[in-house]
Amino acid sequence: MDSLQFTAETSSNGVVERDFTVAGIPGVLWSPASASSSDRAPLVLMGHGGGTHKKWPAMPGRAHRIVNGCGFHVACIDAPGHGDRPRTAHDEQEIAALFRAREAGEPEGPVVVRYNAHLAERAVPEWQATLDALQELPQIGADGPVGYYGLNMATAIGVPLTAADPRITAAVFGLHWPDALAATARRITVPVQFHLQWDDEHIPREAGLALFDAFASEEKTLHANAGRHKEHPRFEADSAARFFARHLTRSLPVPALS
Amino acid sequence: MDSLQFTAETSSNGVVERDFTVAGIPGVLWSPASASSSDRAPLVLMGHGGGTHKKWPAMPGRAHRIVNGCGFHVACIDAPGHGDRPRTAHDEQEIAALFRAREAGEPEGPVVVRYNAHLAERAVPEWQATLDALQELPQIGADGPVGYYGLNMATAIGVPLTAADPRITAAVFGLHWPDALAATARRITVPVQFHLQWDDEHIPREAGLALFDAFASEEKTLHANAGRHKEHPRFEADSAARFFARHLTRSLPVPALS
Repeated sequence: MDSLQFTAETSSNGVVERDFTVAGIPGVLWSPASASSSDRAPLVLMGHGGGTHKKWPAMPGRAHRIVNGCGFHVACIDAPGHGDRPRTAHDEQEIAALFRAREAGEPEGPVVVRYNAHLAERAVPEWQATLDALQELPQIGADGPVGYYGLNMATAIGVPLTAADPRITAAVFGLHWPDALAATARRITVPVQFHLQWDDEHIPREAGLALFDAFASEEKTLHANAGRHKEHPRFEADSAARFFARHLTRSLPVPALS
Repeated sequence: MDSLQFTAETSSNGVVERDFTVAGIPGVLWSPASASSSDRAPLVLMGHGGGTHKKWPAMPGRAHRIVNGCGFHVACIDAPGHGDRPRTAHDEQEIAALFRAREAGEPEGPVVVRYNAHLAERAVPEWQATLDALQELPQIGADGPVGYYGLNMATAIGVPLTAADPRITAAVFGLHWPDALAATARRITVPVQFHLQWDDEHIPREAGLALFDAFASEEKTLHANAGRHKEHPRFEADSAARFFARHLTRSLPVPALS
């Protein structure tokens, strides 16, 4: 197994941020500053969106809400071709295709769906190796609860990851097309919270609803907010944190139905 | 103006529950036990569902979450023909029609939509008189923030009430058909949180989505949960409480968009 090396550590607002690498893949782990090294806590794997990276402001922002709100660990790695990682010639071609579509006023969906499906094939085994290594840490452990949180490109990666890895027992997804994902979503049965934008200019409303509909999960909740693609409200990061608190905290009972 | 008379008072778990009447309509007011008579706090008007009443277990349950979670007041009155109020001959006819439809395995929607629209005509002025009287209380006041929270029949009453009364500045609705409500919802611009059940056996999915779509509110959020009509999850009462905390607490900033 590839082991995890910590390369840097900072701390702010009650959260310790540690950079790490696993098999050359750079990541970051956010943890409660107050926890001792023998305290175990659940882990949320968090993916970043297309064109951003593991420390894009939304990532530490969401991580701090989960670390401080739930006492959990949060880990994010750079996706292939993103952040501190090199781009392949294929990455460059697809990014150029996306920019051409944007400039021509053509739909982004076909390029994004195709390219994200390709990235997911590369990213799923990377996430699994990262999770293997994170579970070696005494504060996380091999049998602790694990969640996944990722929107946009991170949903394209997270849906096949969650379908493939039974260690992930709760997931927050959203803001993606069903084309390459619905068939895989039909194999997912863990609790899901799904975010979409009601007036998304890129993802047709029916497409977003179709992806939510595809999950086989007995417990799944759609949060649809008025607004365009990039207007996804910040309060939904708190919804995600509460969802993980409900599902990854073993001492809590399953929520009763009214 | 009809004034408010308190008729009984009990207290549990940090919440004072006071029965009252306004112009013969019986209601209940839940308030923080810790508040002094000079502390003002926002007010949430809460409607009960069809066939239930102001003290049906879900009502004090939701009220306690809002009183203890937000420090607000919550008021509920019996709808016409419900709880401690007499039924008219028309009420009896419509209830009999509903039971006949149920026993025959026919859709409930046509009866519920028609009867609830009738009840709303009677209930909206009653709610407005009740709000007038509640605002005379020093702990609430004439210019304090007011929300409305009601699902099922209480959405059929709350949509026309919220459209008619500018004192209501945030509302939680859900679990109803658009037929008699969508045109009125198009006049509502205050923030709305809307709950629907993804597998509702009474309200077709498209019908619930159409009612959410009708609200003209710049900020509106749909919470759609897997499950049948009566499986609406209890954790959505906490979502409603957080929504009111965001919108009725004047010292909080409007949530930023990420």
